Amino acid sequence: MRIGVLTGGGDCPGLNAVIRAVVRKGAGVHGHEFVGFRDGWRGPLEGITMPLGIPDVRGILPRGGTILGSSRTNPFGIEGGVAKVVENLHALGVDALIAIGGEDTLGVATRLHEQGVNVIGVPKTIDNDLNATDYTFGFDTAVNIAMEAIDRLHTTAESHHRALIVEVMGRHAGWIALHAGVAGGANVILLPEFPFNLERVCAYVESRFQAHYAPILVVAEGATPDGGENAVLAKGLDAFGHVRLGGIGEWLAGEIEKRTGKEARTTVLGHIQRGGTPTAFDRMLATRFGLHAIDAATDGDWGTMVALRGTDIVRVPLAEATAELKVVSRELYGEAEVFFG
Amino acid sequence: MRIGVLTGGGDCPGLNAVIRAVVRKGAGVHGHEFVGFRDGWRGPLEGITMPLGIPDVRGILPRGGTILGSSRTNPFGIEGGVAKVVENLHALGVDALIAIGGEDTLGVATRLHEQGVNVIGVPKTIDNDLNATDYTFGFDTAVNIAMEAIDRLHTTAESHHRALIVEVMGRHAGWIALHAGVAGGANVILLPEFPFNLERVCAYVESRFQAHYAPILVVAEGATPDGGENAVLAKGLDAFGHVRLGGIGEWLAGEIEKRTGKEARTTVLGHIQRGGTPTAFDRMLATRFGLHAIDAATDGDWGTMVALRGTDIVRVPLAEATAELKVVSRELYGEAEVFFG
Amino acid sequence: MRIGVLTGGGDCPGLNAVIRAVVRKGAGVHGHEFVGFRDGWRGPLEGITMPLGIPDVRGILPRGGTILGSSRTNPFGIEGGVAKVVENLHALGVDALIAIGGEDTLGVATRLHEQGVNVIGVPKTIDNDLNATDYTFGFDTAVNIAMEAIDRLHTTAESHHRALIVEVMGRHAGWIALHAGVAGGANVILLPEFPFNLERVCAYVESRFQAHYAPILVVAEGATPDGGENAVLAKGLDAFGHVRLGGIGEWLAGEIEKRTGKEARTTVLGHIQRGGTPTAFDRMLATRFGLHAIDAATDGDWGTMVALRGTDIVRVPLAEATAELKVVSRELYGEAEVFFG
Amino acid sequence: MRIGVLTGGGDCPGLNAVIRAVVRKGAGVHGHEFVGFRDGWRGPLEGITMPLGIPDVRGILPRGGTILGSSRTNPFGIEGGVAKVVENLHALGVDALIAIGGEDTLGVATRLHEQGVNVIGVPKTIDNDLNATDYTFGFDTAVNIAMEAIDRLHTTAESHHRALIVEVMGRHAGWIALHAGVAGGANVILLPEFPFNLERVCAYVESRFQAHYAPILVVAEGATPDGGENAVLAKGLDAFGHVRLGGIGEWLAGEIEKRTGKEARTTVLGHIQRGGTPTAFDRMLATRFGLHAIDAATDGDWGTMVALRGTDIVRVPLAEATAELKVVSRELYGEAEVFFG
Repeated sequence: MRIGVLTGGGDCPGLNAVIRAVVRKGAGVHGHEFVGFRDGWRGPLEGITMPLGIPDVRGILPRGGTILGSSRTNPFGIEGGVAKVVENLHALGVDALIAIGGEDTLGVATRLHEQGVNVIGVPKTIDNDLNATDYTFGFDTAVNIAMEAIDRLHTTAESHHRALIVEVMGRHAGWIALHAGVAGGANVILLPEFPFNLERVCAYVESRFQAHYAPILVVAEGATPDGGENAVLAKGLDAFGHVRLGGIGEWLAGEIEKRTGKEARTTVLGHIQRGGTPTAFDRMLATRFGLHAIDAATDGDWGTMVALRGTDIVRVPLAEATAELKVVSRELYGEAEVFFG
Repeated sequence: MRIGVLTGGGDCPGLNAVIRAVVRKGAGVHGHEFVGFRDGWRGPLEGITMPLGIPDVRGILPRGGTILGSSRTNPFGIEGGVAKVVENLHALGVDALIAIGGEDTLGVATRLHEQGVNVIGVPKTIDNDLNATDYTFGFDTAVNIAMEAIDRLHTTAESHHRALIVEVMGRHAGWIALHAGVAGGANVILLPEFPFNLERVCAYVESRFQAHYAPILVVAEGATPDGGENAVLAKGLDAFGHVRLGGIGEWLAGEIEKRTGKEARTTVLGHIQRGGTPTAFDRMLATRFGLHAIDAATDGDWGTMVALRGTDIVRVPLAEATAELKVVSRELYGEAEVFFG
Repeated sequence: MRIGVLTGGGDCPGLNAVIRAVVRKGAGVHGHEFVGFRDGWRGPLEGITMPLGIPDVRGILPRGGTILGSSRTNPFGIEGGVAKVVENLHALGVDALIAIGGEDTLGVATRLHEQGVNVIGVPKTIDNDLNATDYTFGFDTAVNIAMEAIDRLHTTAESHHRALIVEVMGRHAGWIALHAGVAGGANVILLPEFPFNLERVCAYVESRFQAHYAPILVVAEGATPDGGENAVLAKGLDAFGHVRLGGIGEWLAGEIEKRTGKEARTTVLGHIQRGGTPTAFDRMLATRFGLHAIDAATDGDWGTMVALRGTDIVRVPLAEATAELKVVSRELYGEAEVFFG
Repeated sequence: MRIGVLTGGGDCPGLNAVIRAVVRKGAGVHGHEFVGFRDGWRGPLEGITMPLGIPDVRGILPRGGTILGSSRTNPFGIEGGVAKVVENLHALGVDALIAIGGEDTLGVATRLHEQGVNVIGVPKTIDNDLNATDYTFGFDTAVNIAMEAIDRLHTTAESHHRALIVEVMGRHAGWIALHAGVAGGANVILLPEFPFNLERVCAYVESRFQAHYAPILVVAEGATPDGGENAVLAKGLDAFGHVRLGGIGEWLAGEIEKRTGKEARTTVLGHIQRGGTPTAFDRMLATRFGLHAIDAATDGDWGTMVALRGTDIVRVPLAEATAELKVVSRELYGEAEVFFG
């Protein structure tokens, strides 16, 4: 077979590990040929390819990013886009596609499969918010980066007198904040799933100061205050009615300073959570996803996606990828709350 | 309730995280009191205790080792040992024990439970060789340490002309070697589960040199050559009939040099795999084990052990801990072999 | 002798290493006794002490923060403060002080020495902006943290299409930005010493995008735009005349987006640059500072401060500590500019 | 000018940073052309080259190893070798050479310069044993790797009951052992410069066990026991008269076990000290060495080598590189001994 590979959406440590495993097993064991499509769906849409043989994947396992590039291009949003993709696949002699990506990328893959294209999916979301799989690669790396930041703040928190806030990724699901906060021993963890009460947050902050320790707060970028505060924040205004430039972390620091009279400082981790070398967990998971995806392609098990269940890699229908957002449950959040204050 | 806590066996990053979670939830939520027993089963045997309240567990989450100390003392191996343990628990007003340890420690716990002692177990083995749970804490940390060592060797392997060997932990099960080897992109991985053929190993080494790259071999300390070589090695003699001082890695380097004429160098990671701050995965798992163990104690669900199944923490009979060694399957090893040579 | 030790000012990895070396050599070799003063000058001012013997410094070498605590209290700013300090030193039988701190802390030390108090200084500034010494401890740690953040952005920069900004410490001197930026391979580095031209920055950004790489900009928190932009920024207003909540990094992102039409994202490292375990360079330097400070005290060489010159630790007059701010020279900045764009 | 660049000798983190700086400034600022010679002196000897323009050095700053490869080939040891080098340089139109390497590589450079070849040297030794410069790049990286290993052992040392030995690089000079040992808080540090007394080492080990801590010993690979032990060891025999396979660390573990009756375990770091991404210190130093080397070439200041003095990069005669080995002084070792036991 001649198989195209593409990566779509935001960056995620482990993408190169998937690509390498697909090619090493696909070319080395199954005897397939590969075509690399550049920049996500833009590749098949515009026919932009790169060579993708065993020499091309040498040395990429530990590297962040993706050698194929990425984009948010969606052929279904472009007039005649799908026809163009199908045409290009034919013209290039491509029999099947392995699409590595998140909700958007796999959404396109699902619809292409419905239109007869041979597709296998590999799920990718740094936010770990996919119901179909226990974990996605990249998440463990992001959590470790955020945890190490919290670790560093602990020593400085002990010798000083400020509230320290770490803003981490997570617009709709708080998995990174939850895991990094618990692993880092944060005193408060705020998630998009549960709007927070500012007074209760400030009470935790005050009680921690009274115990002669400076509080550390982990806040997901999508966390929001409950009630009236939310309305103001939603408009993108600060407490003075001015347009806010910073994110929720910066806003929270301002509110804590106003309400407790103590200084607060914010660390915004931003894109460093998406970059750099993957952890062992993510490299192993990504490698196994790649190996099982190429097996599924070899089996002709089109329209499926690989997923982790316990310690097994299984195949599930591609449609499951986009079926439901996996969010943090009340119960799990309750486990973390044991350590608040 | 008044609950004793002890840690037994070899060191494992995450022990302190378990202790902290047990105490934070046990004292803070359930209102229990705690007694710290020092040095594993030696603590209850000789009545050696330390205070274990919320202030005593402050700041220990990110730290390796165990604040309770550890030992390999077994009360069942000592005349009157068990009676002495039971007597000391009574004398100290201890209603129940939470025992954190591996096969040996939990074996003692199982037998004490059979004799009427209220025990909850928390499984611990850096080797991840316990059938009852998907993963044990400490393992992920060890794998990352070994993987980082392999990463470092890759750059030097590319610019030079030597075979590079990394000897990692694993006497009876090769999980660390397998995961670190796959995640690090090793060219050969040798496990205790599958005696290796020295000629085939040397063939991989030669073919890698011919491709102008230096080979990297990961070998578990318990790996052994097949056939006749094994007999010599088993006697602890080197190729000259002298007593060997080094381990399998050193021996393998000598054999490769003799057979291929190329230099070989060995890194022996040793105890650095057991120390230092745990990864986020291990801190999260250890914390959740601790939370669920104290819940089991509060429920009076004696004779059980916490375990990870998928993303859930469940309770299983203590006896399962020692029922069967979890070893690497042929199938999983086959996944790794895709990358050999 | 009975010697008091205190740490003042902001946190800095290596403080505990200094304290440990002072006590290990002072008590173990010279036979001195030690008193730990808590929270900088507040300790001697209010007579707040803690024990400081060899057992108290065990295990602190690798730890960030300071076991003595810190503060910005200045006895010269308090009515009768100095007399109170002198009185407390007498009452506690303290013969001499070792003061570890930056410009403010050592400024107080200098003036106390002029009033007859036996003082030895150990310089500390994470910003490395002290003319009297080649390097200060803590700086190397901060630079490595910032460099690792930049490393992570590189991989994500290559696969995506955004300008990435890292805001690092440095209000008056740009050493951290310079070293981290050069070591991390940043495309633009902006320092407080040289007001930047926004158009030129945007030109670098554009040219980098044209080469199909996303630009990475490192900006010291004290960097400012030149000319008219500066006036607006100085008022703490954003481009819309609203009060700015974020720092210079956030502001720069906004300007780049407006002027280039490309997305820009900011990472604000904040206090994580001050925390965590020190690098080997900082531990070695801090340890040697401590050893030489206690030697100076033993010699009765009061009013001096230890400093690094090449690979030697020397003694210089305390007054030098506050004489002149060490800033980045045009020449050194020119070395970095080779890599811009 | 058309300038050749080569790297010789053992691996050293920072080599790629030198190459990049040379090319970025040489091509970008001075307008030179570059030729990459492969595998050290083998490149000019056999005329093996690779392209070395600005695109070729993109992304190599953080990477260990050397894109040019390396070897220990010496044209002076080969009949007609020097004439061949000179001939090849002519044939390739190469006006000058920048040679990056240690004693051997720069020794060749010195002699070639004496024969009229235009050469600039950049010193490289991971052992930091070069008298002409305060520090060499790669050393700081190696020290940090060894220190992190010691850090990890501390936690496991505290909970267990074994002597832990770390064998680090350093055949003739103990700089890595000294710095890593002091920075890591080792209890004993053994260097090639000062033959050790086995009884005194065992006394430290015993006293540390009596204080309920397990001792950590750092031993340079070139360290040797004094007196009669040395004679046996020098023959490469173990205590039983058998050929030793392991290094000094393994031997020391055996002796400690025999003499103290306590278990001892060895970690052999080996080549991981030479690999991986360089620290900020090493990247900065290597970059500055590269910038100043190309300036020296542009100035036609042939026969010189760049060196670090304090915070300045200076030029010194190439011959100084090989004049004298820089070893650890009694005085510096005395600073470390404060912490022994």
